[in-house]
Amino acid sequence: MTQSHNPFKTSVDRPEAQDGVFSHPEVLLANRNSGILLETLELDVTPTGAHYLLNHFDVPLLDADEHQLNFCGAFAEPYRLNLSEIKALPQVTMPITMECAGNGRAGVSPRSYSMPWMYEAVGTSEWKGTALLPLIEKARPQSEVVEISFMGADYGFDKGIGHYFGRSLTLEQLEKLDVLLVYAMNGVPLLPQHGAPLRIIVPGWYGMASVKWLCQIEALTQPFDGFQQVKTYLFKQHKNDPGKPIREIRVKSLMVPPGVPDWTSRKRLVNAGNVELIGRAWSGAGVAIEKVEIEIAGEWHIAELEKNDNRYAWTKWIFNWQAEAGEYILRCRATDANGNSQPLDPPWDISGFANNAAQSVHVFVE
Amino acid sequence: MTQSHNPFKTSVDRPEAQDGVFSHPEVLLANRNSGILLETLELDVTPTGAHYLLNHFDVPLLDADEHQLNFCGAFAEPYRLNLSEIKALPQVTMPITMECAGNGRAGVSPRSYSMPWMYEAVGTSEWKGTALLPLIEKARPQSEVVEISFMGADYGFDKGIGHYFGRSLTLEQLEKLDVLLVYAMNGVPLLPQHGAPLRIIVPGWYGMASVKWLCQIEALTQPFDGFQQVKTYLFKQHKNDPGKPIREIRVKSLMVPPGVPDWTSRKRLVNAGNVELIGRAWSGAGVAIEKVEIEIAGEWHIAELEKNDNRYAWTKWIFNWQAEAGEYILRCRATDANGNSQPLDPPWDISGFANNAAQSVHVFVE
Repeated sequence: MTQSHNPFKTSVDRPEAQDGVFSHPEVLLANRNSGILLETLELDVTPTGAHYLLNHFDVPLLDADEHQLNFCGAFAEPYRLNLSEIKALPQVTMPITMECAGNGRAGVSPRSYSMPWMYEAVGTSEWKGTALLPLIEKARPQSEVVEISFMGADYGFDKGIGHYFGRSLTLEQLEKLDVLLVYAMNGVPLLPQHGAPLRIIVPGWYGMASVKWLCQIEALTQPFDGFQQVKTYLFKQHKNDPGKPIREIRVKSLMVPPGVPDWTSRKRLVNAGNVELIGRAWSGAGVAIEKVEIEIAGEWHIAELEKNDNRYAWTKWIFNWQAEAGEYILRCRATDANGNSQPLDPPWDISGFANNAAQSVHVFVE
Repeated sequence: MTQSHNPFKTSVDRPEAQDGVFSHPEVLLANRNSGILLETLELDVTPTGAHYLLNHFDVPLLDADEHQLNFCGAFAEPYRLNLSEIKALPQVTMPITMECAGNGRAGVSPRSYSMPWMYEAVGTSEWKGTALLPLIEKARPQSEVVEISFMGADYGFDKGIGHYFGRSLTLEQLEKLDVLLVYAMNGVPLLPQHGAPLRIIVPGWYGMASVKWLCQIEALTQPFDGFQQVKTYLFKQHKNDPGKPIREIRVKSLMVPPGVPDWTSRKRLVNAGNVELIGRAWSGAGVAIEKVEIEIAGEWHIAELEKNDNRYAWTKWIFNWQAEAGEYILRCRATDANGNSQPLDPPWDISGFANNAAQSVHVFVE
């Protein structure tokens, strides 16, 4: 299938999105791509199957026994590995918080037409695999190599362009980041929808970098020009803005909505008295969380942070609220060790990327 | 928390839904409640975590070690069971296809305001547990007993009424249905979001009957009047219609969308030539699938059915299409052994329940 065979170039351009209402195709995406259940933020590790999922194309159903990872391109010693060989390599298991670059998109106005995430495109899994860098070094990138690309088996069209999902990292980035080649999550083999049998995890970066259904690792002597690298996942202020690449996860926090919900509105009812508000906070590139603040009735309070030994996993926070009868919009806001704080209003991006504005939770106390 | 403490009675009634567009709360529900990925219909068993999920309230995070199932009410010999005791009972493992009663709701016009399912609220898991009926008989229902209720640990509000999710079955229904008390799915313990540590599965009925986070089984001498039994899950032609209870799954079929997708529209590109169309068909109460037909360019063709030894699991179908260049709306339609066929247009129900109209897949062949 080639780009010239392309009915989508003219017939399926993305329409404008409207604020406040969502189109049928956007809801179709929301039904396919699942978000975390916010109440599971109580757990260090998101239950299997409740981790957020964002797949651009169809899930390829690959045969793990037949699967091969091909190190190719400008390597002095290209080679291939099968799953058994990869599982025999030194094992690393690490809890890593991953977030979709589109998380919060539905809160950015004017809206961008795409998967309409609100707060729920985040999760933490125990990823198991092996360090990637030694495997690339083993293939000996030639001196002209500038980037390494990672190609998945998932193919489809976006904005009229047919392509396999692929991303790249520079050698410098690979040296700094603890990229894992992963074959298991939460103690079970990778689920098909999470990239089985093989994917990478780029800790601290938004999820687009963590290529699923990984087939090929190629050494490139020119920067990678794949669609998912150069045509999207760019911060843009306006349509003609050349854009800046999206990389590290911005500082963010979420709370477990307290009390009990109304089924359709998800507003909450809480009993007056002591209410333990709990949640999670995280930031990109392994930067620690320094502070979480909770806003109640216009006043900000400092939450207690739980000790966190896992550099790439979210930090738990707790705040005991003496709740009095009334109606509240609770908010939480994190600050990381670099001094970055969550904004109260969504940062502007034309595609609604990386919206880390403080979460609002509508609560009635009685 | 009691019903009198209820801010939702007046402040959060459900607004009218608009055809063609969806509200923010509806998309919030779509982000929380995940649908099957249609491409996984290729598999007999839906991958763990890709089975559809519809939870009215928050997922209760229960301690399996502490959990007890309480047989109470009008039993001559009420008793309790813990998880170890339940696991020591005779084990049954069965692939069962489950579908949400709200599946297809977004296709019914005028729309009903709720979780906006299109086609994806279905899945098949290997459920493992023990037969429920002997456990009820062991408690010896008294002669006045008319129904047995099943109460979950999940609490919240709907239409202003606070309640635990609960459902009932008559003794007669329990004798006819192969209801399972379940603690594992697909070889792993129940996931929190699927009812851990304990739920029932009512094969052949829509999902609302398969109560999750099961805590209590009560023998009742009056019909159960819980919200989820008498205030919803009723077929209604109009607002004042008293309604008829929703029970057995209606005959239905789905196809794996062929070819490759456009990311946002999910329309498909297929290469001309032989295309193997595959999908699944199922009907309620263990009724076999007798026929699946595929509509291509206005003509209906008979698909081949794969032999199916699992009474409560979907049946695979295959049709080899010699695809010629063009634009198509493919449809599939199943007929069961009782002679029930899927309609081409959505059957009317005020809440959009049990819409089993034929699926449409928009395909370009080149």
